[in-house]
Amino acid sequence: MKIAIQGERGSFSHEAAERMVRGCTVVPCAASADVFDALDARRVQAAVIPIENSLAGSVAEHFDLLLAREAFIHREYSLRIEHNLIAAPGVRLGEVRRAFSHPVALAQCRDFFRAHRGIEPVVFYDTAGSVKHVMAERLRDAAGIASRRAAGEYGGRILLRGIEDDKQNFTRFFLIDRQRRAGRGANKTTIAFALKNVAGALFKALSVFALREISLSKIESRPVRGRPWEYVFFADLLVGDTETARNAVRHLGEFADMVKVLGIYRA
Amino acid sequence: MKIAIQGERGSFSHEAAERMVRGCTVVPCAASADVFDALDARRVQAAVIPIENSLAGSVAEHFDLLLAREAFIHREYSLRIEHNLIAAPGVRLGEVRRAFSHPVALAQCRDFFRAHRGIEPVVFYDTAGSVKHVMAERLRDAAGIASRRAAGEYGGRILLRGIEDDKQNFTRFFLIDRQRRAGRGANKTTIAFALKNVAGALFKALSVFALREISLSKIESRPVRGRPWEYVFFADLLVGDTETARNAVRHLGEFADMVKVLGIYRA
Repeated sequence: MKIAIQGERGSFSHEAAERMVRGCTVVPCAASADVFDALDARRVQAAVIPIENSLAGSVAEHFDLLLAREAFIHREYSLRIEHNLIAAPGVRLGEVRRAFSHPVALAQCRDFFRAHRGIEPVVFYDTAGSVKHVMAERLRDAAGIASRRAAGEYGGRILLRGIEDDKQNFTRFFLIDRQRRAGRGANKTTIAFALKNVAGALFKALSVFALREISLSKIESRPVRGRPWEYVFFADLLVGDTETARNAVRHLGEFADMVKVLGIYRA
Repeated sequence: MKIAIQGERGSFSHEAAERMVRGCTVVPCAASADVFDALDARRVQAAVIPIENSLAGSVAEHFDLLLAREAFIHREYSLRIEHNLIAAPGVRLGEVRRAFSHPVALAQCRDFFRAHRGIEPVVFYDTAGSVKHVMAERLRDAAGIASRRAAGEYGGRILLRGIEDDKQNFTRFFLIDRQRRAGRGANKTTIAFALKNVAGALFKALSVFALREISLSKIESRPVRGRPWEYVFFADLLVGDTETARNAVRHLGEFADMVKVLGIYRA
């Protein structure tokens, strides 16, 4: 099964894809829009995208793409994010002067840089890409900060494991494809909706779920592209493909400007 | 008046600070936590922080810091984000081979890079910092992508103005300081609250506002640090420092696990 990811081989998305679909073949894409293009063009059967990190917050672009494009969420997976210092084989920790990685990863390893003043953080486009770069250029004074998967992928050696400041660092991934159907054992639904900007509009929207005893586990508002400070709401409902859930969504549609079910899946 | 910002002089935060407080002196800080430290240590009277971009979404770290630290929002300001290609004086567009900038800025200029295949995007820590770097290193084949303010700050020349893909690109900034008092003419309140994880909890929380005819303009949930997938909610209420607003917040406090007023200010 071919699965599109954004970023290089060895990235956290690659790791999440392999955990979600054993034996899959990942297709790396440069940009997130390319991932959705690959789905549209049927070059892949599915895609795996990060949607939210427990420290850094939501991946806004992926919410926007789920809303704009034809894709349906089929599963979610929470991956523990472990950052590792990875260098070429034979390079010792004392020789490392620079550590390359994505700015978010560097920011999550502040304690490491405070404890190793001789190592300078250097911004790179991608976590796994930083290891690829260090290996391709045969650098002896530099390392990359990335997943364990990246070390295996490019033949690097892990000098230090788990150098992130906060161990409660998780990223939630979605497995998406083109088929609009509820997954087996589905117990969670993600929807997007837009409301007229009147007092109590969101309260009224939530009433369609509360009065049916459907719990929300998350809600988020995103500015509408091209109309600054108008918002669309994204909500996770703790309900699968039931009659009650369908009634609630239909009820919401009676007064919302837009309702889109983005996925019905197993939590 | 001394105002702390995160990032270099000439950044969009610098531009926002000058528009919000005429004649202020900005104090650049490396990290966002340093901005709040500068406030605590009274090295500055106030700080200006970006909270949300209309394309890239919320700045999660700043929501977390507003919740964790002692600071109060006194004003908001929406800055139009214009990206410019800036090089050393005398450098012509045809000579530029690389353009440095922050990854978010590079991602917002995709059309520019598609139209100028000879220019390679290169990741840098900071937008304004990229111009500082190009000027300090006297690079003749490189440019930075940053605000117009950055060109003036470092003596660069704007080769191309407004190279961002989407002109509806705005960032919302908060002016914060240590004084917990409502600003004059306040008509907006930002609060944070945490709820027990029971069905209908958010609906009940919003009822304290809806039943008093207080509108919400934005709501967002953020995972609680150290407790993955437990959420705290951030909401903007279209109300100032009124008796009704105080009653609503007190009512919410009767059943919420936590309520914190982050600011009462003029929209």
